[in-house]
Amino acid sequence: MSTLSIPQFVPPASDDAEQLRKAFSGWGTNEGLIISILSHRSSAHRREIRKAYAVLYGEDLLKALDKELSRDFEKIVLLWVLDHAERDAVLAYDSARRWGPGDRALIEIACARSSDELFAARRAYHARYKRSLEEDVAAHAKGDFRKLLVLLLTAYRYEGPEVNLTLAKSEAKLLHEKIEGKLYADEEIIRVLTTRSKAQLEATFNAYNNAFGHPINKDLKSDPKDHFLSALRAITKCITSPEKYFEKAIRLAINKVGTDEGAVTRIIATRAEVDLKQIKELYHKRNSVLLVHAIKKDTTGDYEDFLVALIGEESA
Amino acid sequence: MSTLSIPQFVPPASDDAEQLRKAFSGWGTNEGLIISILSHRSSAHRREIRKAYAVLYGEDLLKALDKELSRDFEKIVLLWVLDHAERDAVLAYDSARRWGPGDRALIEIACARSSDELFAARRAYHARYKRSLEEDVAAHAKGDFRKLLVLLLTAYRYEGPEVNLTLAKSEAKLLHEKIEGKLYADEEIIRVLTTRSKAQLEATFNAYNNAFGHPINKDLKSDPKDHFLSALRAITKCITSPEKYFEKAIRLAINKVGTDEGAVTRIIATRAEVDLKQIKELYHKRNSVLLVHAIKKDTTGDYEDFLVALIGEESA
Repeated sequence: MSTLSIPQFVPPASDDAEQLRKAFSGWGTNEGLIISILSHRSSAHRREIRKAYAVLYGEDLLKALDKELSRDFEKIVLLWVLDHAERDAVLAYDSARRWGPGDRALIEIACARSSDELFAARRAYHARYKRSLEEDVAAHAKGDFRKLLVLLLTAYRYEGPEVNLTLAKSEAKLLHEKIEGKLYADEEIIRVLTTRSKAQLEATFNAYNNAFGHPINKDLKSDPKDHFLSALRAITKCITSPEKYFEKAIRLAINKVGTDEGAVTRIIATRAEVDLKQIKELYHKRNSVLLVHAIKKDTTGDYEDFLVALIGEESA
Repeated sequence: MSTLSIPQFVPPASDDAEQLRKAFSGWGTNEGLIISILSHRSSAHRREIRKAYAVLYGEDLLKALDKELSRDFEKIVLLWVLDHAERDAVLAYDSARRWGPGDRALIEIACARSSDELFAARRAYHARYKRSLEEDVAAHAKGDFRKLLVLLLTAYRYEGPEVNLTLAKSEAKLLHEKIEGKLYADEEIIRVLTTRSKAQLEATFNAYNNAFGHPINKDLKSDPKDHFLSALRAITKCITSPEKYFEKAIRLAINKVGTDEGAVTRIIATRAEVDLKQIKELYHKRNSVLLVHAIKKDTTGDYEDFLVALIGEESA
């Protein structure tokens, strides 16, 4: 569930566009006004505002924001104004071009979106970058990661509830064999993780737990510093419990020496309208601190204000 | 261009549906009537006829045809009545489940369709089989073929005209190195063939020819009996010159000892509304025989009549 607080009566998009224009004009920028509008509008509203702004001022709102804002505040506002497919395309592009084995954005886009959302991101990637997402990932990621990520990102998983329990058992056995043999990048592991439906994978992981006495994620922890193993864990978690995955991701981003603003920005901007409410609740439960307090402690200025507006002040 | 001859005044879909119902009723089936209607209707018309038939008789036209017809005639009529995405899904399903290294249907679907058509087939596959195409291909194809086919079928290639000539040269060199080393299933070869846009690949193959003095397809012929090499040649040809690819495919299907009806059916049903006119012309030029005459020589009965109606009697 979304954490956005949207006023009962949302002004017409053209009024919002006018207010934003005002925020940009004169001496300095009125960041407070920008925050008070954009952080309290749904994606459908934001799309309308962008359209209205283009009609009224002959300029893309994103260009105007890009000129007026800076640093982390700029990054989150720009991501926020984009619709979800474009936002994923931008995140994927940045990750593909500067790919490193610790990257999580590509895994999140591949595993914590619906099949159609993932495909919409690939389509937006064409329009924006005149190339395909898989082309850039294949050209930049290396070795086993390349195999894994390209298949993960090009998947169009079936989304029905049908589950084949016999298959789940046999593939759980297969996964266990490969994991026992430390063949983590074996093509059978990659095949199962990248092609089966999420419902089927959930059944397979349950069968794994039943047959071998521990969750697959535990068995993928033999070397906590191995980046490939950690990517596999992120994938299984993103597929089966995205909220838990994101709670942990944001916890790690905040608890780092020097907050990982990139991760905070990405997670808040992509989850605010999806499941940030659940993530907040899990965060509170797991850390005995409200997420909004943790964020306030670790960030400053307009960036902090924008994050807080998206997360919501109220107790979890 | 299409080879269909569609009457200037097409009857309303409900009239066509009624006529088809008549063809099914009474003693025996009136195959001639079925052929005279369905072979002279565009895919949009056929879709309307299917709808009208369902409304009028509460039965799917495909079910009715399935009951009335048999063997090769049935196969081509059923494929023909499906819209292109469903047809590709059916063809891909049959190929995936009975996959063998000589299979061409999957390569054709992956390489001789637009990116959106290929994606539409994957979507139709979900709806029809409650699974993903890549899931079935990955579960049935083996070894290097699996790697190649899954990436080929899950690609969503960029389709703009932009070409990077520097990249074309460097990837031509890369392909040449791998081919010289006989590393045909090297992941770099697979990466280039499965991710780059068709325009980019065309530039790469031209750069290859310029730099090394022969077309890449010649260099992929070191062992004409190697199925993987032959699949690579089919891919490069399907991407750069689909009509030439299909001319050859239909020539081989006809000239076989015992015609390969499966291939003839698939090619005529999938190309009749796309580029069968060009394929016919190439066929005539290459074989000094009209395609329609070759088909008549090799087929019989209603199947023959239906093929001839789709190909068109007129000289090439």
